[in-house]
Amino acid sequence: MSREAFVNGQYKKFDNAMVHIEDRGYQFADGVYEVFAVINKKIVDYDGHLNRLFRSLNEISLKSPIVKESYIFHIRNLIHKNNINDGLIYLQITRGVAQRDFKFPINVKPSIVITAKNISMENYHSKFDYGIKVKTTNDLRWKRVDIKTLNLLPPVLAKQNATESGCEEAWMIDSDGYVTEGSSSNAWILIKDKLITTPATTSILKGITRTSLIKALKKNNIKLLEKRFKKQDIKKANEAFITSATQFVMPVIKVDNILVGKGRVGKYAYLFKDAYMRAIQLK
Amino acid sequence: MSREAFVNGQYKKFDNAMVHIEDRGYQFADGVYEVFAVINKKIVDYDGHLNRLFRSLNEISLKSPIVKESYIFHIRNLIHKNNINDGLIYLQITRGVAQRDFKFPINVKPSIVITAKNISMENYHSKFDYGIKVKTTNDLRWKRVDIKTLNLLPPVLAKQNATESGCEEAWMIDSDGYVTEGSSSNAWILIKDKLITTPATTSILKGITRTSLIKALKKNNIKLLEKRFKKQDIKKANEAFITSATQFVMPVIKVDNILVGKGRVGKYAYLFKDAYMRAIQLK
Repeated sequence: MSREAFVNGQYKKFDNAMVHIEDRGYQFADGVYEVFAVINKKIVDYDGHLNRLFRSLNEISLKSPIVKESYIFHIRNLIHKNNINDGLIYLQITRGVAQRDFKFPINVKPSIVITAKNISMENYHSKFDYGIKVKTTNDLRWKRVDIKTLNLLPPVLAKQNATESGCEEAWMIDSDGYVTEGSSSNAWILIKDKLITTPATTSILKGITRTSLIKALKKNNIKLLEKRFKKQDIKKANEAFITSATQFVMPVIKVDNILVGKGRVGKYAYLFKDAYMRAIQLK
Repeated sequence: MSREAFVNGQYKKFDNAMVHIEDRGYQFADGVYEVFAVINKKIVDYDGHLNRLFRSLNEISLKSPIVKESYIFHIRNLIHKNNINDGLIYLQITRGVAQRDFKFPINVKPSIVITAKNISMENYHSKFDYGIKVKTTNDLRWKRVDIKTLNLLPPVLAKQNATESGCEEAWMIDSDGYVTEGSSSNAWILIKDKLITTPATTSILKGITRTSLIKALKKNNIKLLEKRFKKQDIKKANEAFITSATQFVMPVIKVDNILVGKGRVGKYAYLFKDAYMRAIQLK
């Protein structure tokens, strides 16, 4: 069975899934996207992701060409066609194909692309046991990172910079010295029994996994503080994490040259992962 | 004769010029571009544009898959194949097609797309005689706008905002109140006989047309000040302009509710246009 993708109303063989060179996604990054995890054939947090997708569309004045239920329909079809048990769905919407001009085109249909791929939950759990290393870098991004747009070169460069230092994620630091978030994840530290994460203002993307984890932790009586933290605060942390739709909860054992706690995965990491996994599978 | 474009080594009918959905230009805006004007079949300032292209590539750690001369060769072919006398060349390079992942892919060939279209110099000169209106807007862009990348949603939104107010360009204002540049042009004001434009730091893209005009004006003994200016300075200006590869020199007659000078195209505008046009055609 060969892989299939959804491209502008049609299911295509993945290798032949093409868009026109004047798609505004390609020339202007004029579009938004979401990534959904699939576990046991179920789409994780799909209401949260779709609500955020529609918010992103609204913030860039782009009208969805189809209703929310149609996205779910196509995602489910791709899960079936690609025989996904555990996997990732990538969905992007751009302002369509039009002669290149900065201003919006008139009467142009937005482009929709959806892809699906398999992931291994076993690999995730193994990676979790080791934790990841993080490198800090300046946050160079634009002022509306609360919108999930395709303008991703700044986080791409941040992640690459981290990769070249043997790290799995970059934590971005704003001009006031505060950690905003990861290049494609939210950032968390735990100081004693207080869990701290950057508040969801315009300086971060409000993660769906972040929101789900917060809800799950409330039930577990964890003390959560949504407040900004600096690199020096990481020295006081006994544990640290990232969250994202693709990494779920992932422990951080080192940030630059700072060992987090004892430099190995702590007990809260397991507690949070379990709370999150239970919460999404009970939905 | 149907239009043709250059796509990854091949000349394609424009309507069939496609790229894969996992091209990193489409998913991450992971690429850079240039726009070249063509006048009388000659490519304007091609050395300046190609040098900037290679600088942009270098700043995002992307290696050109071909040498400078090959770009010129393909551009000339497109000028010929599309029967361009006066026109625009659009050239973009992305980090190629790879399974979606923020970090750079390994051993992936960058994608190159080049398109050509006709423009009318008569239309340009007619538009010039009327001048354009500008709307100011907050500069929301990332901190490396000196690199000509595909991360263009912020200027797209700025231009659209200007368009909806009946203006042809947006001038972006930074958090200190200074005009940085237009959404796709550099900004200039003339106070008495002093021409003022924002210095080329990381807060603007160093325009090739800007550089050429500066050189041309030096020969004409115009007093140029490369310094930042604020919206309130526009009230003191007798003339104002934008420059870009597609607009050359274009007079600005109104910024928000401020009439520039008498609200019509002034004599310096003609002087500058003529100096620029002579300079590029003598090259």
